[in-house]
Amino acid sequence: MTTPSTTALWLVGARGSVATTAAVGALAVGAGLAARTGLVGDAPELAPAGLPDLDRFVLAGSDIGGVALPKRAALLAEDGVIPAHLPAVLADALAEVEARIRPGIAPGHGAAAEQVRRVRDDLVDLQQRTGVERVVVVNVASTEPPVADDPAHASWPALRRALEAGEDVLPPSALYALAAFEAGASFVDFTPSAGARLPAVAQRAEEAGLPWAGSDGKTGETLVKAALAPMFTTRQLRVRSWAGVNLLGGGDGATLADPSAGLSKTRSKSRGLQAALGYPVDAPVHIDNVPDLGEWKTAWDHISFEGFLGTRMTMQFTWQGCDSALAAPLVLDLARLTARAHERGFSGPLGALGFFFKDPAGSGEHRLPQQWDALVAFAADLGAGQLGAGR
Amino acid sequence: MTTPSTTALWLVGARGSVATTAAVGALAVGAGLAARTGLVGDAPELAPAGLPDLDRFVLAGSDIGGVALPKRAALLAEDGVIPAHLPAVLADALAEVEARIRPGIAPGHGAAAEQVRRVRDDLVDLQQRTGVERVVVVNVASTEPPVADDPAHASWPALRRALEAGEDVLPPSALYALAAFEAGASFVDFTPSAGARLPAVAQRAEEAGLPWAGSDGKTGETLVKAALAPMFTTRQLRVRSWAGVNLLGGGDGATLADPSAGLSKTRSKSRGLQAALGYPVDAPVHIDNVPDLGEWKTAWDHISFEGFLGTRMTMQFTWQGCDSALAAPLVLDLARLTARAHERGFSGPLGALGFFFKDPAGSGEHRLPQQWDALVAFAADLGAGQLGAGR
Amino acid sequence: MTTPSTTALWLVGARGSVATTAAVGALAVGAGLAARTGLVGDAPELAPAGLPDLDRFVLAGSDIGGVALPKRAALLAEDGVIPAHLPAVLADALAEVEARIRPGIAPGHGAAAEQVRRVRDDLVDLQQRTGVERVVVVNVASTEPPVADDPAHASWPALRRALEAGEDVLPPSALYALAAFEAGASFVDFTPSAGARLPAVAQRAEEAGLPWAGSDGKTGETLVKAALAPMFTTRQLRVRSWAGVNLLGGGDGATLADPSAGLSKTRSKSRGLQAALGYPVDAPVHIDNVPDLGEWKTAWDHISFEGFLGTRMTMQFTWQGCDSALAAPLVLDLARLTARAHERGFSGPLGALGFFFKDPAGSGEHRLPQQWDALVAFAADLGAGQLGAGR
Amino acid sequence: MTTPSTTALWLVGARGSVATTAAVGALAVGAGLAARTGLVGDAPELAPAGLPDLDRFVLAGSDIGGVALPKRAALLAEDGVIPAHLPAVLADALAEVEARIRPGIAPGHGAAAEQVRRVRDDLVDLQQRTGVERVVVVNVASTEPPVADDPAHASWPALRRALEAGEDVLPPSALYALAAFEAGASFVDFTPSAGARLPAVAQRAEEAGLPWAGSDGKTGETLVKAALAPMFTTRQLRVRSWAGVNLLGGGDGATLADPSAGLSKTRSKSRGLQAALGYPVDAPVHIDNVPDLGEWKTAWDHISFEGFLGTRMTMQFTWQGCDSALAAPLVLDLARLTARAHERGFSGPLGALGFFFKDPAGSGEHRLPQQWDALVAFAADLGAGQLGAGR
Repeated sequence: MTTPSTTALWLVGARGSVATTAAVGALAVGAGLAARTGLVGDAPELAPAGLPDLDRFVLAGSDIGGVALPKRAALLAEDGVIPAHLPAVLADALAEVEARIRPGIAPGHGAAAEQVRRVRDDLVDLQQRTGVERVVVVNVASTEPPVADDPAHASWPALRRALEAGEDVLPPSALYALAAFEAGASFVDFTPSAGARLPAVAQRAEEAGLPWAGSDGKTGETLVKAALAPMFTTRQLRVRSWAGVNLLGGGDGATLADPSAGLSKTRSKSRGLQAALGYPVDAPVHIDNVPDLGEWKTAWDHISFEGFLGTRMTMQFTWQGCDSALAAPLVLDLARLTARAHERGFSGPLGALGFFFKDPAGSGEHRLPQQWDALVAFAADLGAGQLGAGR
Repeated sequence: MTTPSTTALWLVGARGSVATTAAVGALAVGAGLAARTGLVGDAPELAPAGLPDLDRFVLAGSDIGGVALPKRAALLAEDGVIPAHLPAVLADALAEVEARIRPGIAPGHGAAAEQVRRVRDDLVDLQQRTGVERVVVVNVASTEPPVADDPAHASWPALRRALEAGEDVLPPSALYALAAFEAGASFVDFTPSAGARLPAVAQRAEEAGLPWAGSDGKTGETLVKAALAPMFTTRQLRVRSWAGVNLLGGGDGATLADPSAGLSKTRSKSRGLQAALGYPVDAPVHIDNVPDLGEWKTAWDHISFEGFLGTRMTMQFTWQGCDSALAAPLVLDLARLTARAHERGFSGPLGALGFFFKDPAGSGEHRLPQQWDALVAFAADLGAGQLGAGR
Repeated sequence: MTTPSTTALWLVGARGSVATTAAVGALAVGAGLAARTGLVGDAPELAPAGLPDLDRFVLAGSDIGGVALPKRAALLAEDGVIPAHLPAVLADALAEVEARIRPGIAPGHGAAAEQVRRVRDDLVDLQQRTGVERVVVVNVASTEPPVADDPAHASWPALRRALEAGEDVLPPSALYALAAFEAGASFVDFTPSAGARLPAVAQRAEEAGLPWAGSDGKTGETLVKAALAPMFTTRQLRVRSWAGVNLLGGGDGATLADPSAGLSKTRSKSRGLQAALGYPVDAPVHIDNVPDLGEWKTAWDHISFEGFLGTRMTMQFTWQGCDSALAAPLVLDLARLTARAHERGFSGPLGALGFFFKDPAGSGEHRLPQQWDALVAFAADLGAGQLGAGR
Repeated sequence: MTTPSTTALWLVGARGSVATTAAVGALAVGAGLAARTGLVGDAPELAPAGLPDLDRFVLAGSDIGGVALPKRAALLAEDGVIPAHLPAVLADALAEVEARIRPGIAPGHGAAAEQVRRVRDDLVDLQQRTGVERVVVVNVASTEPPVADDPAHASWPALRRALEAGEDVLPPSALYALAAFEAGASFVDFTPSAGARLPAVAQRAEEAGLPWAGSDGKTGETLVKAALAPMFTTRQLRVRSWAGVNLLGGGDGATLADPSAGLSKTRSKSRGLQAALGYPVDAPVHIDNVPDLGEWKTAWDHISFEGFLGTRMTMQFTWQGCDSALAAPLVLDLARLTARAHERGFSGPLGALGFFFKDPAGSGEHRLPQQWDALVAFAADLGAGQLGAGR
């Protein structure tokens, strides 16, 4: 096997909690300073994929503000999200990443077409300066509200015309996806934002022969749902209702307490349950901003189900997780997998990455075991070409 | 496809809650009076197996006491375990089953060899009188304490000599298994008792070319464990401890509050977690007798796990289930599958039925998704012969 | 002690779940057919009050629709809210109550002043026909949306003028309260609706020398909050956030899923926590309609608190209760207490009944132990006059 | 008011987690470096007591081993039990306390009478060297197994004879209590060990005119039980069962996993519920050692209760607390209160301190609100003498 090629990981929202934890983690793991717990790409079942390791990545990105990465890492350490000693140990490496963070797309600051060009140029420039073979853009910025329908979303030609005419028809996440594709980079949306999912944007990726993945990383409640729903269905137990509440602090809590952005998230969370169960079910989901929880989120779910002869029973679970610690390794896994898919010539939505997402693009499968099987099969496909011709 | 052949289901502990619920359910479902919720054998994925339907079964069994089946059904209806109207509707059919219940093996009442012969004769007699093609014995009696080691357990010849010498080396569950094999019947142990698992008894089944399955039906906490453990492992999250408590009322609670019988159960519950996770973990399990809960059981589990960069997180779940309503359809599923395996010429422990058990005989697999895949593959095997030669 | 005087209990929403359970319970307990569990008025500490027993009450009321009481009782028995045998045993008595149910106030059906007169006449008529000494009106109808401010709410003269002018300035709950006071009856609001709380309506009660109580019966989550908040405060543990979610089925769930009515409820639920703790705290509360839960409600609360040296800890609780079974005895208790207060000459808001309410009128106390102490003291006051002059 | 007098706080088990947290906290709060959260003695309702503040205490104690206090504090900071910066800031002060820690009583090391004399001498010596007006001994050592009955426990004369005869009839906790009383010091048992509860030892305290308090600090599950039980009783809801499980790590978990010591604890935990409810109830309690939880403990309780017309309902709660952070301020509160009682001339068991204990000596009251009221009344008594003569 040849040495995996080098890749740049461009994080949109590069100074946020998830991006900072991912950066600290990639640097720490790459330097042998931290265990590899939580990295799905390390599973023996995925070894055939020949994924690039974390020390093969150059980290960079963009943000519309925020404190500098080394400072942000120190704050996360204070909150117990990352080990207390790492920010100091990694100070130089974090400063290098910070130096590669460019201004992000701020709504209302310039024409959309111009913003796409600017980000594209940033990506191309990064690739040239660092000499990496390819770039993968991962969106971990704040969740956007749902996008209003627009005729320009229907096809890439229509969208191009609208952008050239100066129309404001795309949210930032989609502008980033376009910029990635214009720069020959792959794209991953870890948020429920539109990203590459609008038909016109997806068409642009297809045209450019580039892979992309999304959307909305599955880090807590929805992960458990995806694991438990098949238990009920294979046992032929009928779920009658599945209600959930999510308490979030931090910036995420504040963003999602805004009903319009929260709507993107709760829609994304609800979509999968019916698919996983195979029938519709009452499944209210709430998100509450509870600032004192900080980076920690607590979810409680109540499941009412029916068994033999109509007997009604219930299950409840509480999930108390650190959002950034759950999300960061998945961001790195997705970068490794998508970069490898790019290298191996895959294009379009990578449905086999549904294991990572609440709302998987390119797949209608929401059952975790089946998503895992699909991921393992994909890993074999990624590695197959090692031994022979490309696809 | 030819009409599935008729089978007798002989329940050991035939007047207990699980057996009574199974009998009421089989009669109600067979007569179209109740929905089929909870019957795993109805899953479309298992259709290739060509399982006999519930109306093809003759119900019978043995018990060492207990109130008559129609009365027991009425008591379960009062407790809300079965629908209030069914005992009256099914009164005649239940009385017929009651008429087929024979005295069970009571410890200390006669020589073991004699007891085996008596049960064997009961089984042969049932088959001759009813004209069924085969008999499947399912043990749903009270859990026995762990069996003390004995040299006679090592091989069938040694065991036969010991029994002929009048030695008392087997618990009732193993005597029933032996009796089943002597009568040419298959055997399923739904409890954590020894049943057919002692090497000598398993050897007897092999010699007779008969299939058997066990042990300890997976109806609640362990079912959830089997579904959740793979979520942690595929996400590379490291489980640090997994503590559980089970509150049980009813006869089961009283039996398992006896430390010696409880030991069989908690051992059976603990065995699987390490196998499912792939590494050892602190996993204390308690069973408490809480009489006021009646037929309902409540389990609470607390899982401590570690994610990226060592962050510690927790998950808890509460399961509030009706034990008999969860167990009864599995008893019927196991009877259908084992009888079909018998018909198709399978022998020895049916490892592919591990989906149903806490402590699967013939399989080291404890992850629910993998157990489901094995069951689906087994269903295909069961059906394959439909189209051609036997095995 | 003389025999307690007879009273009529007029239930607004007389065919609803709470009213039906209260009626069945009053009749069953009065006839010695059911235990007295849940009746606060039976506590030995309240014995000095000399409360009238349940067999001294004549039941009546109004509703704007609904199935007849005997049928409703049968439906509740099917849902397991009341014992299965009671509807048949009490059939005649329930039919008598049904015969005393009059049409309720439906919004938009006639001028407000006219509606008040009609209800007043119904109350007076009831008293004359049955010969009871007094009437207590208890509102258990559906929760109303918050009332828009109106200048007529400020004083009874202003309100009287507005009503006479045909203005529609009062919700039904307030019209019922007015009608009660016009008829010389006392009034209890078991819902979070306006009832007697508008200053103008309360002024009318004061003028008439009549007692009233409210509002919003404390039956589940808020009850637990009131019990736990003093635990935190007396231990000097600082609550940082207290988030709650309520899953409700039945008509109540549907009503409160309507954001405007739900707002009355969540406001009522939030008000007390700050008062009980003595400082403001983030306390989001959600109500979700989950129809499959029927008459059962499940609440989950998550409390984050801080201890010595700033250590952060959490507590969670789940409450799974049958709303009508929790509310009905309180309705009867409130009728007994308010009727007795009426008899003893009390007037105005009965702050000492805050033990029963989420949002107690006439009291700022929300800590359950202190509310209990106030109730016990009130019981002594109620009984004091037994021995001497009135007040 | 005169300046409160100075006191020495002698901690038995002075290098354990609770004692170390108490020492760090007393020093930090006394120096204005930490907030006073969790200190019950600071409640405004207790102000009349005129309690000495933390800066009036000299800290000392004994232990049979363990790492030095400054090191232990550093370990607790690593575990997040105390703020990371405090061990360094308080290094000198902690070293001073460490210098005052004397060897503890190790079972089997010398005659009991001799050990009592040695500890007495240590206490007297401390008082003379530091010039404090009095000493209070608080036992926070590991829980002992229940004590076997012995005739010498019946009276102080009998016990004195047995000790002089060299008999080994007392556990260390009782030897410490005796030593305290011999030295003219007061005594508090924060553990479920025998301490001063044996009649002979209590008689010695009475004879010496010294106050004592105990036993078993109420820091988690039992605290919640004491707060919730009165909610059920005042609402006349009948508790049917109350099952609990406690997951503990740290040294406490290991000690209590030993069935004999665990028995002391679970007995202590069970005693109160029946008293608080007023009737017996099935209430199994388990303690599990889960080492990975470290200083944190998690309790889960399941309460089954019955309401109006026999409806059965349930409540569950989970408590996730840091044991040392919960216990340490109570240790300081008890020292303040007991020292003040000593100063004010109280003697014998201080039943009014039951608010702090699972198994209150001198009181049969287990309801938290009533315990609070008793504590507030006691505070008034403690202060009363300020204005006039002693008692």
